[in-house]
Amino acid sequence: MRNQKEATWSPLFKEAVSRDFESFHECLDQDKRIALHDVAGSKVHAKMLARAGIITSKENAAIQTGLDQIADEMRSGAFEWKPELEDVHTNVENRLTALIGDAGKKLHTARSRNDQVATDIRLYAREQLDLLKDDLKRLIGAFVDLAENHADAIMPGFTHLQVAQPITFGHHMMAYAEMFRRDLDRVGAARERLNVSPLGAAALAGTGYPIDPEYSASQLGFSGSFANSLDAVSDRDYVVDVCSAGAVIMGHLSRFSEEVILWCTPMFDFIEVGDQFCTGSSIMPQKRNPDLAELVRGKAARVIGNLAFSAALMKSQPLAFNKDQQESKPPLTDTFETVRAAVSVTAQMLATIKVKHEKMLAAANQGYSTATDLADYLVRAGLPFRDAHHAVAAIVGAARDKALPTLSQLSLADMQAFAPSIREDVFAVLTVEGSVASRDHKGGTSPRRVKEAAQAARLTIA
Amino acid sequence: MRNQKEATWSPLFKEAVSRDFESFHECLDQDKRIALHDVAGSKVHAKMLARAGIITSKENAAIQTGLDQIADEMRSGAFEWKPELEDVHTNVENRLTALIGDAGKKLHTARSRNDQVATDIRLYAREQLDLLKDDLKRLIGAFVDLAENHADAIMPGFTHLQVAQPITFGHHMMAYAEMFRRDLDRVGAARERLNVSPLGAAALAGTGYPIDPEYSASQLGFSGSFANSLDAVSDRDYVVDVCSAGAVIMGHLSRFSEEVILWCTPMFDFIEVGDQFCTGSSIMPQKRNPDLAELVRGKAARVIGNLAFSAALMKSQPLAFNKDQQESKPPLTDTFETVRAAVSVTAQMLATIKVKHEKMLAAANQGYSTATDLADYLVRAGLPFRDAHHAVAAIVGAARDKALPTLSQLSLADMQAFAPSIREDVFAVLTVEGSVASRDHKGGTSPRRVKEAAQAARLTIA
Amino acid sequence: MRNQKEATWSPLFKEAVSRDFESFHECLDQDKRIALHDVAGSKVHAKMLARAGIITSKENAAIQTGLDQIADEMRSGAFEWKPELEDVHTNVENRLTALIGDAGKKLHTARSRNDQVATDIRLYAREQLDLLKDDLKRLIGAFVDLAENHADAIMPGFTHLQVAQPITFGHHMMAYAEMFRRDLDRVGAARERLNVSPLGAAALAGTGYPIDPEYSASQLGFSGSFANSLDAVSDRDYVVDVCSAGAVIMGHLSRFSEEVILWCTPMFDFIEVGDQFCTGSSIMPQKRNPDLAELVRGKAARVIGNLAFSAALMKSQPLAFNKDQQESKPPLTDTFETVRAAVSVTAQMLATIKVKHEKMLAAANQGYSTATDLADYLVRAGLPFRDAHHAVAAIVGAARDKALPTLSQLSLADMQAFAPSIREDVFAVLTVEGSVASRDHKGGTSPRRVKEAAQAARLTIA
Amino acid sequence: MRNQKEATWSPLFKEAVSRDFESFHECLDQDKRIALHDVAGSKVHAKMLARAGIITSKENAAIQTGLDQIADEMRSGAFEWKPELEDVHTNVENRLTALIGDAGKKLHTARSRNDQVATDIRLYAREQLDLLKDDLKRLIGAFVDLAENHADAIMPGFTHLQVAQPITFGHHMMAYAEMFRRDLDRVGAARERLNVSPLGAAALAGTGYPIDPEYSASQLGFSGSFANSLDAVSDRDYVVDVCSAGAVIMGHLSRFSEEVILWCTPMFDFIEVGDQFCTGSSIMPQKRNPDLAELVRGKAARVIGNLAFSAALMKSQPLAFNKDQQESKPPLTDTFETVRAAVSVTAQMLATIKVKHEKMLAAANQGYSTATDLADYLVRAGLPFRDAHHAVAAIVGAARDKALPTLSQLSLADMQAFAPSIREDVFAVLTVEGSVASRDHKGGTSPRRVKEAAQAARLTIA
Repeated sequence: MRNQKEATWSPLFKEAVSRDFESFHECLDQDKRIALHDVAGSKVHAKMLARAGIITSKENAAIQTGLDQIADEMRSGAFEWKPELEDVHTNVENRLTALIGDAGKKLHTARSRNDQVATDIRLYAREQLDLLKDDLKRLIGAFVDLAENHADAIMPGFTHLQVAQPITFGHHMMAYAEMFRRDLDRVGAARERLNVSPLGAAALAGTGYPIDPEYSASQLGFSGSFANSLDAVSDRDYVVDVCSAGAVIMGHLSRFSEEVILWCTPMFDFIEVGDQFCTGSSIMPQKRNPDLAELVRGKAARVIGNLAFSAALMKSQPLAFNKDQQESKPPLTDTFETVRAAVSVTAQMLATIKVKHEKMLAAANQGYSTATDLADYLVRAGLPFRDAHHAVAAIVGAARDKALPTLSQLSLADMQAFAPSIREDVFAVLTVEGSVASRDHKGGTSPRRVKEAAQAARLTIA
Repeated sequence: MRNQKEATWSPLFKEAVSRDFESFHECLDQDKRIALHDVAGSKVHAKMLARAGIITSKENAAIQTGLDQIADEMRSGAFEWKPELEDVHTNVENRLTALIGDAGKKLHTARSRNDQVATDIRLYAREQLDLLKDDLKRLIGAFVDLAENHADAIMPGFTHLQVAQPITFGHHMMAYAEMFRRDLDRVGAARERLNVSPLGAAALAGTGYPIDPEYSASQLGFSGSFANSLDAVSDRDYVVDVCSAGAVIMGHLSRFSEEVILWCTPMFDFIEVGDQFCTGSSIMPQKRNPDLAELVRGKAARVIGNLAFSAALMKSQPLAFNKDQQESKPPLTDTFETVRAAVSVTAQMLATIKVKHEKMLAAANQGYSTATDLADYLVRAGLPFRDAHHAVAAIVGAARDKALPTLSQLSLADMQAFAPSIREDVFAVLTVEGSVASRDHKGGTSPRRVKEAAQAARLTIA
Repeated sequence: MRNQKEATWSPLFKEAVSRDFESFHECLDQDKRIALHDVAGSKVHAKMLARAGIITSKENAAIQTGLDQIADEMRSGAFEWKPELEDVHTNVENRLTALIGDAGKKLHTARSRNDQVATDIRLYAREQLDLLKDDLKRLIGAFVDLAENHADAIMPGFTHLQVAQPITFGHHMMAYAEMFRRDLDRVGAARERLNVSPLGAAALAGTGYPIDPEYSASQLGFSGSFANSLDAVSDRDYVVDVCSAGAVIMGHLSRFSEEVILWCTPMFDFIEVGDQFCTGSSIMPQKRNPDLAELVRGKAARVIGNLAFSAALMKSQPLAFNKDQQESKPPLTDTFETVRAAVSVTAQMLATIKVKHEKMLAAANQGYSTATDLADYLVRAGLPFRDAHHAVAAIVGAARDKALPTLSQLSLADMQAFAPSIREDVFAVLTVEGSVASRDHKGGTSPRRVKEAAQAARLTIA
Repeated sequence: MRNQKEATWSPLFKEAVSRDFESFHECLDQDKRIALHDVAGSKVHAKMLARAGIITSKENAAIQTGLDQIADEMRSGAFEWKPELEDVHTNVENRLTALIGDAGKKLHTARSRNDQVATDIRLYAREQLDLLKDDLKRLIGAFVDLAENHADAIMPGFTHLQVAQPITFGHHMMAYAEMFRRDLDRVGAARERLNVSPLGAAALAGTGYPIDPEYSASQLGFSGSFANSLDAVSDRDYVVDVCSAGAVIMGHLSRFSEEVILWCTPMFDFIEVGDQFCTGSSIMPQKRNPDLAELVRGKAARVIGNLAFSAALMKSQPLAFNKDQQESKPPLTDTFETVRAAVSVTAQMLATIKVKHEKMLAAANQGYSTATDLADYLVRAGLPFRDAHHAVAAIVGAARDKALPTLSQLSLADMQAFAPSIREDVFAVLTVEGSVASRDHKGGTSPRRVKEAAQAARLTIA
């Protein structure tokens, strides 16, 4: 005789389940995350059964009361989870039957654990995506705040981590706001795609009862019900979708984290992160490490792992449901928990960042950052761009040879040696302030455009 | 003195580039895929420059003529690629200047290779996504054809690869049609998200010229232009989006391929795949292997690799452009080429599949596939589902002990021993035909519903 | 004023650490796995300090006593973990100072958490690798048992999942024994490579104290001490090594699991897995699913995720230690726990497998599995192999056209029509028993060779 | 009637192979890499056949001559590859038969493409691993050169990219030398594990001919022959082994590349990389980008992709050979080509690095890098380390408040306010030179130890 759980399956089983196997396939830790969704799904399923005349309204009433009590027990922590009952579904059904008797045994009519768990996970994922959206909006808001506060602050813009052209810190912050705005769209698209109800697909073929899948779907806030029962129970596409969106979000956070780490070095020294998000050393008393940023960077790798996991998991599985799919829960829940925490804590950290304007400005004046402006000056004076580019390269070479850190320290004559059309007015072109102000088209780095972009972004997160 | 290419950069470089490095970072093979898009982007850029008065309309006319000729040369194969010129952009600019003189040197005014390549790749990806959409539609059509042709054919439905309940082959095919319809949406969402023009972002900061990025965007069919120049040149999110959509598509194909392989074994023997897509053996004269399905299954792993590649690539890169991003092209192009070929060839193979109805029907009668129907019968007779489930398990046990392959071979008395409410009418319930017909709600496996679903799907790919 | 933990770092910190950040970077769950190793490492470190005269022998004695008590508390569960103390190291040091006073504050002399945690993880990983070796040996033993018990049992050998040639079930089992024997070597190589002590590398540069790293190393069972202090604290190569070995092991298990799943279908019906490792269905009373095998297959994807995670994590980190490395623990511990459990439970399942000899034999007689033997017969009769191959293909075609399931059902004349050199003795060649017996070289499938291979394998796991 | 290729298989095939499928599964580009190994394997196979009396010595002589000519044709480029012949094996056999007639048709006796291709790939991989070993040795040599040339050059050592303690540049370089020395071991272990001959396993079951697999193995330089024929044809473990070793190597290179990129920024300005490995900009005339380092960093992601690809590929494949395995070649060859090129070009770049000693020294004097030395000074004066750590943190705080960049600028009295036991001799302890010299144990950063380590490393690559 098998234990209580196997009794749920069938008297066909004669040997007790292996204890090691039991602990190998137990998934209650994962299931607790979907427990309230399971109850919510069951409530709607019972309502539908009653509406279709499959159970009586009295039975339905008993089920509703029993499930409400179970939900209360879960919320209060009083619900007694039994690992030997394997999963949330059996735990709930057993508890329900204990509470309300035979009506509880009717709840599973016209459904299977296959469509039930698929419904639960979708409800869970939908909720998490909505919460993630809110987290992202707060993060975008924090970037926009920084952008507006430092719309005029000049810093070096980098390509290849070499000083390229002067930009504003506000513009740099708005680049991140744009990335996370795109992520809002990713999250929204994933939500929309998964918001289809599988409830009623039963084991894989649908059911012979006169169910109303569209009713269940609409009661649970889904946009519609499954078009194919086999697909409904075996689809875990959305796990890949979520992990992929999560990996992109973490990718964005990792890029920002990398910059925070760089900017906190004594060599850059562009910003200071609040104590609340730094740690010290057990041995080096002077240390102050931008620990949070490093950890976020590391956790980006974690979500890449989840992504590879979820994609490899579904590869080559025949239809319809296979036990492998139980493993679709860990990458999903871990991705939500990792990404949401990383987004939230980073948003908090942003509010503590002190920006060191003078350091940034000094750095922007290094590296001949206005060489492109000089080339453009020559183009306005009639040179084809490619020729202007060459002339300026030679001028940069002259400055470098004389160990002059900026082009404006060259004399007019020095410059004219390489480009005779240069006039006295060139020196205005060589300032970082002038350079930044001139990039004044949509999407450009001029303070005016940064403020405009910040306002526009703020509207989208209102 | 450096060679011709370095001359493009700057006279600042004194040592010749290392030959090994040159071959390490050469990417012409990749670039050829975007070459025509590069020309198209340049044509629009020149038009915009002329419109804004940055170049003359005569210069623009010369550029248009020159670029048209270059495009012709590319199409005809006459274009002479020079590996020492590193990339497509320099190859085109050099050729253009050779063709039209100084006006060619003006084409690069107000842009950089950073926004240029970003534009090219987006144009390429957009085109490929559109083509992939067409490929997917043909594949869906092939599944729908099979579904309609075999809407009544009964086969065993599997969960855990054990016989679960009878279904129709048409229903099974429509499960795949649904998956690929979801993929159409994935592909569409990726297209929409990437269809934003980066042209005008220049190196990273925008430009001081009075450019009109929205004009360029609309001429190139983009839905709008970049909101932030740093983001525009450093965003490769869409590579992850494409690889992720590709991995899901290949995941679906790998599931189908797995089933084709199973169904072609002599043990299943459900289908036969046309000779055109099978191979033999060099040693075993009798072999006939469903090679294509296996190869598709293997290539699903390839795209998972591309996905991990693309996500790991962008992790922790500081803004804005870094050379690492050159490596975003291989996973993108390989994913398109692999997925599109796999989708197309599978669609072709579908048309050659012969379905063996008798074999499928015989298998559907194995494994007590109507046990759930019997439990539902007992529920209608008044038992709670959980109790009915147990009674039927005991009946299955009895059949198994007597080595009877189907429940209908048990006598009424044998069944009544476990469930007294069973009556003579039970035998109608135990047929696979009755089982299938009874699952007649939306999304269910009944032939009527399958035909309905097939028609609906056909509309979406029209 | 910061809390107790930050006090460990430095009074430089003025703001309290963010609670959300605290929970984001807390890693006690991970650290509990290395807690006893941390104590063991500290005991050796104190001994070394005393031996080098850096602390007194009295201080060392106090530390040894205190650490022993802490280890006891950990083993009994009495140790009180304080999450606000962030990690195991600070928990232990604080508890030690509470127990023994000022001597506790001297334990951290001449080391840092960087070399300390690196030491702990290596000790942990080494122990796990040793345990995994034992697990693997038990698994190999279980395969060898099956191989010996079924050394003569004939089954179809598959390529492309098509019947290829007859083999023995014992031979098939020994293929897995060989894979896992190779994995023993993988595990051993990973162990050897990581068995180098980082203790004494301190934060990154070594220390000014007259330490003796070789002494510490030998006391902890390491094969030697670090050759470079920067490398010692920043090396996490072994995490990739472990995940890679784990992925290969799980790959092997997933292949076997796939076969178990296939063999349990009613179509194959080659084996039966014990009830202890199967599950039923909540809806379909007749179901008996080889759940364990499916779950193992799914968990193979999990370890692939860990592998991608670990490799992406270390990419592009500058030297020496960065906080990202904290994330090297989860893929390491999860891989060990997943792989060890999967190996163990599979070994247990093997012991419950019932092999259905008649079903296998019947299947081996399908699919013209001795066609190669017939070709070889023709070669012995003088035909070049390629011509023989063609003649046999034609004979197979004739059998197929006549719907004869085996070649031996063709008449001699039918065969001679394609290959005149065939004689009456051909029928002996066409039996599966003869085919199997003839493959009698080292590594071949003949029963004699299988038994030989089983014996040889058994020696290596003794 | 099928074309020439299918004729190789069997007249059973009646439909011509699909052209799209043909191009989908064609792999000649991959196969060209193993072509000479295929010929070498065939030569040995023929010798074995002759030795065992399976073919005549005259036939063997003809085969040897024919294969030698084919190898010559391949080397000279004269060999005519026929894509319609699908793979290298059929191309070679067809050409051989064209050259020498019927004896050519006998070459495939007692083998299959399954064991043949497995042999070829192992020979190829073994050769590549040997070449990679040489590449790694040259790379290690280049690091050792730098280490010896700059053994005394002081730079800041970083943890969390914050200045931690002073180290020497030589020590930093030797950290990389150690990593790549470990990689030599990885490469060696992979080589050893794969160096087992599968030749003679035939399709999957071995063969009925009296073959001598050990003879073939020894002639091909393998350490032994397969223990199980099924395993021999279906094992691709070594692809994962190679990709894993490759990912670790690229991980090491990516870490170094990241540092090169940082050190080349104007903020760090620690080194200059030779023109030969830098590139400029198409728009910014002043740019000089450490392009090679960035590209290597990007290619690390590529090999992570290959690793995920190879691991996912083999997951869940039933025994023995499946067509999926054709896809094991691309990740293998791409990994070898990527890693070998990255290792080689980086080694070349190392030789062009100019180290800016003054910049590094100045940076080492920033960030209170000798605070740990001060704490250790206090320990020697009797304070427990933890208390000393706190006192020094307070002293650092005082210096920071006074905006003094180094501790040695504080007055003795200022320090004594926090640690009364400080004496005048403290100033010697606060120098970076003293700090570095004091770390003089094995593996420490003192110049003496660095030179010692460099010499030891040089011996291992001799």
